[in-house]
Amino acid sequence: MELINALQWRYATKKMNGKRVPTESVDKILQAIQLTPSSVGLQPYTVLVITDPAVKEKMLPIARDQRQVVEASHVLVFAAWDRITAQKIDDYIELVARTRNVPVSSLDSLKSKIQAGTNRPDAENFQWAARQAYIAFGTAIAAAAELRVDATPMEGFDHEALDRLLGLEAQGLKSLTLLPLGYREPEQDWLVNLPKVRREKEKLFVLQ
Amino acid sequence: MELINALQWRYATKKMNGKRVPTESVDKILQAIQLTPSSVGLQPYTVLVITDPAVKEKMLPIARDQRQVVEASHVLVFAAWDRITAQKIDDYIELVARTRNVPVSSLDSLKSKIQAGTNRPDAENFQWAARQAYIAFGTAIAAAAELRVDATPMEGFDHEALDRLLGLEAQGLKSLTLLPLGYREPEQDWLVNLPKVRREKEKLFVLQ
Repeated sequence: MELINALQWRYATKKMNGKRVPTESVDKILQAIQLTPSSVGLQPYTVLVITDPAVKEKMLPIARDQRQVVEASHVLVFAAWDRITAQKIDDYIELVARTRNVPVSSLDSLKSKIQAGTNRPDAENFQWAARQAYIAFGTAIAAAAELRVDATPMEGFDHEALDRLLGLEAQGLKSLTLLPLGYREPEQDWLVNLPKVRREKEKLFVLQ
Repeated sequence: MELINALQWRYATKKMNGKRVPTESVDKILQAIQLTPSSVGLQPYTVLVITDPAVKEKMLPIARDQRQVVEASHVLVFAAWDRITAQKIDDYIELVARTRNVPVSSLDSLKSKIQAGTNRPDAENFQWAARQAYIAFGTAIAAAAELRVDATPMEGFDHEALDRLLGLEAQGLKSLTLLPLGYREPEQDWLVNLPKVRREKEKLFVLQ
């Protein structure tokens, strides 16, 4: 099974060699993200693709000097909507109508369902949006691995500083995770040859 | 790319035919979940695998009568740790030591890092644990699709009622999502032939 092979091959790469990931491979990773399912289909997040060396240099201290941020040719930034506006819901309903070639008015019950489901404080909607983004984050990790592109999933960075650097607040977004994409430099990577640590099946799963 | 093919093939199956998913396929989906990365490697969640018809029947009203819960042969329940205890961290450190054949004492800095990172209110740790579980949820969706096993990702159910039914509180868990696994019944499924709705690349991605 290709997904299992890919997940066994990958690891949180600690040292990359600076080689550029081909645009074609990045496009496939983005396509996999785009195809990822989300609750009610809203995809309440944005993925920024950072390639500008000057921006990556500024991200380095924000990412606690984890150098993969500059060694990677592309850094994906997963950012969730900080609130669910009426406009966002309208945009989505219009997208459904356009994609399925049905009148907007035929989607009233879907719209009401989404409005009811997101009728709660912004902070709760943000947590929900973040969870959806994490589904896509997982897909991106798997997609990179299937292409034998290395990646380093990162949560440990100064989120507020990154939001400021990338102007995310003005875009209605808050950063969640980073995924630098590149290629491992095995001779300088302490993690590359260590066995993968995973909880035992008997503990991770409960059969009922 | 197999992952993209799988994601294009899949959809949130609305009607299943009751056929049993072979144990071998379920085991591969669980293996993919197990291999999924998580922040600091803690995997702070449990996946319950429900096959008992009586339990699935009781889950039906809790899942707002979405019948895939009983039409599926296996229902995965993703549940996150409701808090991060010292014991959980110790268990993980011992697992790392055992897997990599190093003394526990050599992992003091990893342990301190995890302790510092999880030194916050239980509610915040739960949100963080939930995000990790969603990475695995996404992997499970992709794994099922690669095996051409249908699945219906579900968030919309009575979480507290399910926690009571499955005794999750006593296990230190809170339910997040369901993933019924089975096979589509195309002639009775209103969604099967509708085009997939996804946000346009120009909106979902920002190149910088």
